Amino acid sequence: MRCGIYCIAAWGVKSVIPALLDAGLKVIDLSGDYRYDNVEVYEKWYKEKHSSPELLKESVYGLCELHRDKIRKSRLIGNPGCYTTCSILAAAPLLAAGVAETKNIIVDAKSGVTGAGRGLGLAYHFCECTENTKAYKVATHRHTSEIEQELSNIAGEEIMISFTPHLIPQKRGILSTVYINLKKQGMTAGDVQEIYENYYKGEFFVRVKAQGELPETKHVAGSNFVDIGVVLDERLNRVVAVSALDNIVKGAAGQAIQNMNIMFGLDEKTGLDFPGFYL
Amino acid sequence: MRCGIYCIAAWGVKSVIPALLDAGLKVIDLSGDYRYDNVEVYEKWYKEKHSSPELLKESVYGLCELHRDKIRKSRLIGNPGCYTTCSILAAAPLLAAGVAETKNIIVDAKSGVTGAGRGLGLAYHFCECTENTKAYKVATHRHTSEIEQELSNIAGEEIMISFTPHLIPQKRGILSTVYINLKKQGMTAGDVQEIYENYYKGEFFVRVKAQGELPETKHVAGSNFVDIGVVLDERLNRVVAVSALDNIVKGAAGQAIQNMNIMFGLDEKTGLDFPGFYL
Amino acid sequence: MRCGIYCIAAWGVKSVIPALLDAGLKVIDLSGDYRYDNVEVYEKWYKEKHSSPELLKESVYGLCELHRDKIRKSRLIGNPGCYTTCSILAAAPLLAAGVAETKNIIVDAKSGVTGAGRGLGLAYHFCECTENTKAYKVATHRHTSEIEQELSNIAGEEIMISFTPHLIPQKRGILSTVYINLKKQGMTAGDVQEIYENYYKGEFFVRVKAQGELPETKHVAGSNFVDIGVVLDERLNRVVAVSALDNIVKGAAGQAIQNMNIMFGLDEKTGLDFPGFYL
Amino acid sequence: MRCGIYCIAAWGVKSVIPALLDAGLKVIDLSGDYRYDNVEVYEKWYKEKHSSPELLKESVYGLCELHRDKIRKSRLIGNPGCYTTCSILAAAPLLAAGVAETKNIIVDAKSGVTGAGRGLGLAYHFCECTENTKAYKVATHRHTSEIEQELSNIAGEEIMISFTPHLIPQKRGILSTVYINLKKQGMTAGDVQEIYENYYKGEFFVRVKAQGELPETKHVAGSNFVDIGVVLDERLNRVVAVSALDNIVKGAAGQAIQNMNIMFGLDEKTGLDFPGFYL
Repeated sequence: MRCGIYCIAAWGVKSVIPALLDAGLKVIDLSGDYRYDNVEVYEKWYKEKHSSPELLKESVYGLCELHRDKIRKSRLIGNPGCYTTCSILAAAPLLAAGVAETKNIIVDAKSGVTGAGRGLGLAYHFCECTENTKAYKVATHRHTSEIEQELSNIAGEEIMISFTPHLIPQKRGILSTVYINLKKQGMTAGDVQEIYENYYKGEFFVRVKAQGELPETKHVAGSNFVDIGVVLDERLNRVVAVSALDNIVKGAAGQAIQNMNIMFGLDEKTGLDFPGFYL
Repeated sequence: MRCGIYCIAAWGVKSVIPALLDAGLKVIDLSGDYRYDNVEVYEKWYKEKHSSPELLKESVYGLCELHRDKIRKSRLIGNPGCYTTCSILAAAPLLAAGVAETKNIIVDAKSGVTGAGRGLGLAYHFCECTENTKAYKVATHRHTSEIEQELSNIAGEEIMISFTPHLIPQKRGILSTVYINLKKQGMTAGDVQEIYENYYKGEFFVRVKAQGELPETKHVAGSNFVDIGVVLDERLNRVVAVSALDNIVKGAAGQAIQNMNIMFGLDEKTGLDFPGFYL
Repeated sequence: MRCGIYCIAAWGVKSVIPALLDAGLKVIDLSGDYRYDNVEVYEKWYKEKHSSPELLKESVYGLCELHRDKIRKSRLIGNPGCYTTCSILAAAPLLAAGVAETKNIIVDAKSGVTGAGRGLGLAYHFCECTENTKAYKVATHRHTSEIEQELSNIAGEEIMISFTPHLIPQKRGILSTVYINLKKQGMTAGDVQEIYENYYKGEFFVRVKAQGELPETKHVAGSNFVDIGVVLDERLNRVVAVSALDNIVKGAAGQAIQNMNIMFGLDEKTGLDFPGFYL
Repeated sequence: MRCGIYCIAAWGVKSVIPALLDAGLKVIDLSGDYRYDNVEVYEKWYKEKHSSPELLKESVYGLCELHRDKIRKSRLIGNPGCYTTCSILAAAPLLAAGVAETKNIIVDAKSGVTGAGRGLGLAYHFCECTENTKAYKVATHRHTSEIEQELSNIAGEEIMISFTPHLIPQKRGILSTVYINLKKQGMTAGDVQEIYENYYKGEFFVRVKAQGELPETKHVAGSNFVDIGVVLDERLNRVVAVSALDNIVKGAAGQAIQNMNIMFGLDEKTGLDFPGFYL
């Protein structure tokens, strides 16, 4: 298991990945390169040629709760980031249950500044961020395509969504608010709650909130948990699902470790079983 | 014009308002009591009996840009708050132009803590708010009903919306992200931009951002301005309109002063013509 | 060892403490009541009668690094709070070494809002705290008396200090900047550094920064560590010692656990051996 | 008066200043170059050769409240920054009154991030600043020399001080806490208060707080005011003076405008007579 220590590749060193695989190592890539089933989708949203399209046949989208079995057998993981992990997990149960309309799905996401990484830019200067909220890359953010790919796979039909990222004045935390119309009439809040609880039964890192409760980013800060709360708006027969995670744990490095644990047959919680910090 | 100084009533002193009117004064009320056309809507969402339902026939919804002419002639204004002002102004132009679908309108709003007023509560303690974002009162916030009333009046048909308030860790600022499907096919981003620019032509306090630009709460902090930016998502034939204002200026006291200026025949900008503070 | 679980008394339940002791339990009290050698000092600064002055003869000031041996044998600990722990540890080495002037010691301390506890008050409302810094209780804060007691005991002579608390807009973290004139001439920065390193040699929870480095509150947030950095201002023959800790760990509950570990013969780091969170 | 619009030079364009003066213009320089009486002090603290030492004979230190008469007649102003303005004004009255010891003056200053300007650096990234406080450049910050120059001039003898800058997680605001021993015995808090009130009598931009009240940075944010509160610690015969200003108004550009007003014979408050924003 000597490969363990080499297994998490950094962003932007894409050329090294085929060589690592050739050397018999397993790779968990935190860039977007190996998150796609279809190279054309990647090239459309990233506006560049993929460097190793042949590897997409074997790479697995590393959202552990959705693809655990494939991850276990794979040597190349495209580790998803914070926006996509948070948003996909909030929508998946309704689509898997076949009760959701696939049109008019809206994902309105709010991200703390760690979501932007550590690079310098005036937009991330303390004085520019504090006491400010903004939307950005409306209708054009490339993570839209990842969310669409995964939700389409779950639903078994092509789904296109609105995804709107926002920058909020805090370090850690993403909150996704997802709007999904029900195609089935007459469902109760209890029915919806049950769909979520069943879908995530046995998942240690996904905590479905009790009915009437909603996640907050501080509840997951410093932890690998994703909290999800669901509300049925009966007037509109629409579900509002709210999910929260910590950008730099379940939204990046934490999930990479979770993937590593799965790939190497370790207890999935190894190194990740801590509660975070409420304050 | 001696009444000017008495004209802004505080929240919660509803019983004094009929007496003030009887004394010949003009009243701008910052509570929700006089914002409704229909007492039943009020009583449903506020879950209490209205104290003076007969006054609703003459009271005017004090969103200056929509009801200036009625405000001028009225003696009783129901001054709208921050969520509603911000959200209604973002959606109004498309509905007025008759190009919007009236179903599937989503208003996802993010509010700074001044939106909650100055009352004490653990939820507003510094340590609970800072570094945290949450949604609350999902599908049940009573301001939903105000937004629906005003958008329905503009559209000429009944509109029901999703309205999701969020609390974000900053003092001043509301950002509303509004999703509206177009019923007309083939519109361009330029067409949408033009609808907004025309609708707000001549409005000093509403600034439609240039195409490709989006509002930020810091751009309006400390001012009476509302900034609105619009994006057409051509893949979905859906408009995402983003609006921003300062909760305690255009979202409350500033708008009350603007209403007073209109009611008393003053220049509408009197006392409000300042740029705010970017930092 | 059944008493372990009862051993941490809350603030303000002073009357129960003698009863707990009578029942054979050990008590770690987080109030100020049992932090004093001399009841008169307590009564002067707290402006009230002490409820059990006879217990002061046996109670021990629970600053673990200073009084470990007495803590081990005691059944009643007056657990110090954040300001005092942070400030005393920054000044202690120079006084213990006998190189400090005992006059003109200044402690200028900056505290995050967790230092104020969870009680409600307008001063701790998010909108009042964020983007604000202030000094308060200048020359009158009662923790002055605790710092003076401990520093006087170390120096072997009566010391009076200036202690100025400030409230800063963050949750966790206290930074104390302590100014101490040297009575000995000709000392170098290296000499001063050595005094600190020797004094805290073997102390797991006190980290003396390398020469030229200074603590930051984020370096200790979420941990039981105290970081201390020292600078010799050769122009003035004055040491500036800067110390940082997390109010609600080493500054309160963490230290209480550390005291419990000592009292019950456990490894002192039990339950406290975590690194905190930099971000 | 055509020169008015050219009169504020930016940081770092020092070579242009002699040329501007030669062209008959008046210059207010925001760099440190023209703040010194003595070129040696400049060269010692800035560790570089001064480009135009001959101009120091005529340049005036632009702290308006101290040097108004000289500013009026000068064509070259070295406009002081935030730390120095705040700190000097807090200490000046006691030194001018001749009641202060000139040894053991400590200036402990806390600055918001606007004090660092708009340049990029990891230290000013939102995630590095928020929820963090630190001291920096302890005993070596070059503004120490400016404070010493001005206080020495007031006292008529050479003064050396400790100056410790701290970075706190807010945008605007400096708070200086200044410790000064009294050489005269028996003074009362009222005596000290009177010294400050008399010294700043008639000064519009310096507000001495009533006895028992202390400044907060939010009280001056967005304004050109400096607030000062003083406490006499009778136990120690030591004054603690606390002052607050907004870094980018009275601490920089606001003071530059105030200087311009003085130089051009305008009302000193022109363009500066606004209250700021409490929230």
